Formats: sequence, C-alpha cells, structure tokens
Amino acid sequence: MIQPRTLKGFRDYLPDLMLQREWMMEQARKVYRSYGFAPIDTPALEYTEILLGKGGAETDKLIYRFKDHGDRDVALRFDLTVPFARFAAQYIGQLGVPFKRYHMGPVWRGENTGQGRYREFWQCDFDTIGATSNAADIETLLVIHDLMLALGLERFQIRFNNRMLLNGVLEQFGIADKAAPVLRVLDKLPKIGRDATQAEMIEAANITADQAAKVLDLAAATGANRAILDQVQKQFGGHALVAEGISRLQQLLDVAEKAGILEERVRIDLSICRGLDYYTGTIYETFLTDLPAIGSVCSGGRYDDLASLYTKQKLPGVGASLGLDRLLAALEELNLLKKVSTPAPVLMVQFSADHLGEYQQMARKLRAAGVGVEVYPEAKKIGAQLQYAEKRGFRLALIAGPDEFAKGEWKIKDLAKREERVLPSSEVLKAIRELI
Amino acid sequence: MIQPRTLKGFRDYLPDLMLQREWMMEQARKVYRSYGFAPIDTPALEYTEILLGKGGAETDKLIYRFKDHGDRDVALRFDLTVPFARFAAQYIGQLGVPFKRYHMGPVWRGENTGQGRYREFWQCDFDTIGATSNAADIETLLVIHDLMLALGLERFQIRFNNRMLLNGVLEQFGIADKAAPVLRVLDKLPKIGRDATQAEMIEAANITADQAAKVLDLAAATGANRAILDQVQKQFGGHALVAEGISRLQQLLDVAEKAGILEERVRIDLSICRGLDYYTGTIYETFLTDLPAIGSVCSGGRYDDLASLYTKQKLPGVGASLGLDRLLAALEELNLLKKVSTPAPVLMVQFSADHLGEYQQMARKLRAAGVGVEVYPEAKKIGAQLQYAEKRGFRLALIAGPDEFAKGEWKIKDLAKREERVLPSSEVLKAIRELI
Repeated sequence: MIQPRTLKGFRDYLPDLMLQREWMMEQARKVYRSYGFAPIDTPALEYTEILLGKGGAETDKLIYRFKDHGDRDVALRFDLTVPFARFAAQYIGQLGVPFKRYHMGPVWRGENTGQGRYREFWQCDFDTIGATSNAADIETLLVIHDLMLALGLERFQIRFNNRMLLNGVLEQFGIADKAAPVLRVLDKLPKIGRDATQAEMIEAANITADQAAKVLDLAAATGANRAILDQVQKQFGGHALVAEGISRLQQLLDVAEKAGILEERVRIDLSICRGLDYYTGTIYETFLTDLPAIGSVCSGGRYDDLASLYTKQKLPGVGASLGLDRLLAALEELNLLKKVSTPAPVLMVQFSADHLGEYQQMARKLRAAGVGVEVYPEAKKIGAQLQYAEKRGFRLALIAGPDEFAKGEWKIKDLAKREERVLPSSEVLKAIRELI
Repeated sequence: MIQPRTLKGFRDYLPDLMLQREWMMEQARKVYRSYGFAPIDTPALEYTEILLGKGGAETDKLIYRFKDHGDRDVALRFDLTVPFARFAAQYIGQLGVPFKRYHMGPVWRGENTGQGRYREFWQCDFDTIGATSNAADIETLLVIHDLMLALGLERFQIRFNNRMLLNGVLEQFGIADKAAPVLRVLDKLPKIGRDATQAEMIEAANITADQAAKVLDLAAATGANRAILDQVQKQFGGHALVAEGISRLQQLLDVAEKAGILEERVRIDLSICRGLDYYTGTIYETFLTDLPAIGSVCSGGRYDDLASLYTKQKLPGVGASLGLDRLLAALEELNLLKKVSTPAPVLMVQFSADHLGEYQQMARKLRAAGVGVEVYPEAKKIGAQLQYAEKRGFRLALIAGPDEFAKGEWKIKDLAKREERVLPSSEVLKAIRELI
C-alpha cells in the first residue's frame, strides 16, 4: 500500500476551495475580456535557457530544472512574464500590435514554504504591449478597479506612482545612477519602517544620509491626489522627466474621474516603487482596506522593453498581475467565502430506481432552464439523502415517491428554512426559480 | 540573443485557439456543474511512487521524472485518474460518499509526437465514486450526451456496452481466464479489421480460432438496441453475469428514452470494450458521425475499485474523460471554429487622447451592460484602427471625434456589412445590443 500524500509546498483543492478559485477566475476572465484582452496559454515546460535568460542566483536556486527524455535541459516556468516575453518575440509579427493578452496558469518555485506560500501557485496576468500611450496605463488602472469590484471587494485602494517622476527627482538629488538600488530598498519601507529603510539605503546604494532622508521625505508625501502632484510640481517640476510623470498621473486622475471611479479608490502614493528595475513608467499596487497586512493583491506597471532577450524588436507595454492565491486567503479571512461544496442548488432525492426515468426527465427540464440538479445516485433512506444534501450545501431538495407520482406532484424542501411545499409538476421550475 | 521557441511536442495557444479552448471548457464546466459534479484540482508534480503505482514499462518510459531540490523522486502527472485515486484515498473520509467530481488540467507524457499528439495536453474528467447503482452509470451517459450538445455537436453517437455481459459470454466460450488479453485485442478491431484482430487474439490470448471467431461474431451484432439485447438474452442470458449486464443496459435505454434522448444518439455496440482491465461494468465511447476516423472523443466506464493502491477502502465508481484536444482538432476540421481573436465585440476608435475620459465613460457603461469594449490605446489614423479591428474579428466599431462629441453623438460601424449609423449617446447601448 502506498501512502497517499502530496509533496511539501503543494496542495490539493477540495471542492469548497476549488469552487471559489473557479469563481474568481471566471470573474477575472469576464473583466479582462470586457476590455478586449484575449487569452493565451504557453507550456508549463520550456528550455531552461529561455526561462533563466540572464538569470540570477535566486531564480537558479528556485527553478525546477531537469533533463528530459531527449536529454534537453528543461524547466518548469516560475512566472508568466518570461514565457510571455518569449511568446511575444515569437509571434508578434503574426499577431500585430497593439496586442492585449491575459494568461492564467500555475507556476512553480522550489522556495521555502510558509503560511500561504506554496511551491505551485496560480498567476493571473494581463498586459497591453506595443502601445506607449498613457491610454493603456489608464486602462490598466480601470481593469484593476473592475477586478476588485467583480471579486466582491468594495473596500480597496489602488496606489500608483510613476517611475519617470521618481527618476527625475532622484536625478535632482544627485543619485540618478543609484536609482535601481535606492528603489529596491524603498520597496521595503512598509515592511521594515523608515529608520531601517534609510540605513539600508545608505549602505546598499552608497548614498548620504541626507540623500536617503530626502527620498524618504518624498515618499512620505500625503494629502489629496492633486495636492501631492502640485507639491511635486512646485519642488521638482522643472525637470522634464518629472513633468512628464506628473502629466501622465494627472491625465490618469482626470480620466478615472470622468469614467466614474470613486476618488477614495485611487491614490497617488510616492512610496510605491515596485522593486524591479524593469519598470519605467506608471506603477500600481492594490491594497484591501480591511486587510492591509497581506500586502498588494494586484501589482504591475509600465515597461519599455518586454522581450529584449529574444528579439531586437522593442516591445513596450503595461500590465499587472492578480494575486489569486493571496486574494483567496484574503476572502477566507474576511469571511467572504461561501461554505458550499456543490455547484448545483438542487438535490433530487431518489425514492426508488423504478422512477429514474421520471427523475431524469424533470432534472433535465430544470437543467435546460439553467438550474443545476443532482439526482442522488442510490435509493437510500430519505434521511440519509437529506443529510448528504445539507452537508454539501444544497439549497433545495426535490422529492417524489409513489404518492407524488400518482398525483403528478413534487415536494420542494428548503433545506435552510426547513420548510416544504407540494406542487404540481408544471409549477416546479417556477417555484425553484423563486426560491434560489 | 536567445532563440524564442518551444520544446518539441509542446505548443502555445494563440488567442484564436485559446478562445475556443476556454469556450469548450466553459461548456464542459456548465454541464458537469448542472449535474452536481464539483471541481477539484491536484498538483502537477507528485511523488513518482504515487504516480507510477504498480507502474508498467510503458508509463515508466513516458513519465517526466526527476529529483527536486530536496532530493525527492518526483514526476509530472501523466493523467488525472491516478491523482484522483490518490486524492480519493486521502480525503474520502472527510468528503463522504457518493462523491462526484470533475477535474480539468494539463497532463504530460514524453511520447512520440505526431499529428494532433502533444507531450502536454488537457484532460477533462468526471467521475461519481462510492456509488454502485446503475443510476450513476445512466447519468454518465446523460452527461456525455449533454456535453456533445453543449459543444455544438448535433451528430454524434454514444456507443456503450457492459463488461459483465462480455465476461459472462466469454465464460460460456470457455475463455473467462483470458478475458483481459482478449478484450485488449478486441479493442483494436476498428483500427486493424476482423482478420488481423482474430489472428492477434489467437496469439496474444492463446485461444482457438473458433473461440476468437465467436468473440468477433458477438462483437459484430447489429440492429436496433433492444433487438441486440434480445438476441444476447436468448443465446447467453442463462448466465447470471450476462443477465445482470443486460438488465443494466436495458434500464439505461429505458431511462434515456424517458429523459428525452434521441434513440439514434445512443447505441449498444458489443464491440466496445475499452482496453483497460480496470473496467468492470458499463463502458462508453463517443463518435462524431461526420468524423468517425478521429476515434472516440469521450470514453469511460464503471470500475470496482479506484484507489486500491492507496487505501483498503473499496471505492467503486463510474466516469468518463472528454478528449479536449481531439475535439478541438475535430471542430477545426468541421469548420466549427470561429476565426476570431478578440473576446470583445466592440472596438472603440480613439480619435484623440483628450477625449479618453468620454471614451472610457461610454465603454464602462457598455461593459456594465455585458458588452465587451476595447478602447484602441493610441490615437492613430482611423483607417489603421479599423484595419486592426477587422483583422482581430471585432463586430462593430464605435467612433466619435470632435463633431460627434459636440452633438452628443456616436457613429456605429458594422465591420462585416460595412454599414454605419449615427446615434445619440443615449441610444448606443440599445443599438449595439440589436447588432450583436
């Protein structure tokens, strides 16, 4: 006998959790599609050379890598960005620009596991490439906004910033050449606090305490969105990069307002910088007001060149990634997950196998009308069948035995309210529709 | 520069194909759910010991297997049945029986590739476990039936048989102990023809030419469903196993008829046997009338024990697997695939970035009403934007420049008919709804 178990850091999705994941993915899919993003998929397994690219010691360590049957050096993808870069380089001639895609799929990282950290997890990315205009940046914000609402999250804040603005200011602080390490450390601010950030910035970027303090003062700017921008304009707006960053953020606020986005949901935050060197324009993070500690649930930004490793064609773009697993954990913590493990609202009790024809006849009628119906597969005691229905979270039970069949009737039982009604066959669909 | 490419036997899904795959999966999901099957997921990577089980030289050869960072012997799943067996053994106490699940996901096999054969492909399984009654077998047939219709396939035939019937007859032929190799060879009949099947049966199962001929005569039975069963009843019905098999098939026909299934779509076929030893009751294959050569697109059957490798608890069940990739190829060949690479029907032309607020305002109104709208991200020439829309397969273009904004109007262009109308803002949604 082999002990049934999963690998450390991997998990099974039982129906209650999987119903939620499918629901979340369906919501995301609807939002992406409503903006014209089209789905793509790429293989789980690729040449290691492609996935590692320039690589880095960290990626090297976490990637699942091996030799396949043909002695090829292959690996499991560790994100959806690298495969998309490879994909774009390969097909952009055929697809044309602008190209808008979403991609949902599992990725694998052999990292240390911890609460909520798995070695296999789902990513949910969307990007617009081949477009440099601010319209795509604005749309990215709108998509994030609509994603949150579609997932039933009303209390959230999209915080955004612009790398041009940051870089322009850093230049005025005399540390333009230190931008990469400075921003990498600034990204840790919410986790480690101002003092530790300043200390680490001085050391990692080799800048003065005064320079670091100035960066942290900028990042600490608070107030209304427009007031923050006015302040930056006054202090640093003489610099072309800063002016361009401010203008893009300004337009973003204007369009969001006109499109009907509540002001409290979009917030300029000069401390948002995303750690990666890769970003060059607008950057986004998204926080849940009731669960700030779980961090950003949807992040991204604008980049100048997606696929420089695989093609000479410049592919600028903007996009973001929805943290599906983090959100699932958040919904669980906020008690927004339904405790249901059936996708169908109605359980049809099986009284006797002799009536399976009648059962399936009625069930098919209901299914055709969009009402899911499970016919209990065995003619067990009714009590046992109802117990099953309650445990699984069915809303209604539909019951008919010889008496009901003789009269052409069905009994509908509301399992939560423990109420039942007897109705003629012809009225069953209507009654069920009213109850669910 | 790294050459962008995929591994041999792996493929990317570009939007036109991926839109189809997502549509197919959505249809399957709807049908499964409407019968009360709940979704689950399991990891792509498992302990090799679990995936190989008793194994077999063939599985050993095709499985992607390696040592992970913790020096564990791990492998990528090669089907969804083995992970489900492990899953069931692990959680059945918690989940309870009967348990109905569907599972859609990629599997990996390092096999030779050929037309339509990939090393990574999607499976789409559904099973009812912990139920021995014929009700679950009947439902399996109904699910297959509804799946085909949901996928837009009207011309199909579900052929089914029963292993009890077959085993009872083989016993009367004196070759009960040869059932496994006999049926394994019989499974090849449609591919290699009667003579070759007979020859191979004699050799592989060590039976006489007469015995092989009798098996092939049985398999060749034609006529109406009930006539075939009557004939078997007359010849072999004295045997308890045969009688039970006939009775189950009879009930299946009765219920299918009562549930409104067209008789031409369900067909008893005594040559259907499925190669695997694993099956013990009803078995199913599904053929497209217009493409018989691609073979069965949905197959399965009843088994006595799902998870004997991992638990002592007997888990009988019945289920089937939808051949997603094969069906995708079939739909392509039958010209049933739409040549569209956008999920949104409407492209909104961007005349000038100054009006992005108005564009997104209208677009959000349409999206909220369920109409997908892509706003072109750059203010390029209108001709170029319309060309993009046509190439992608958008149905309508929505255009407004300074003149239209001044008058509060929009121009709607039907891209296929090349017709356009000018309408006040308030009538746009209604007009678009009528056009799409």
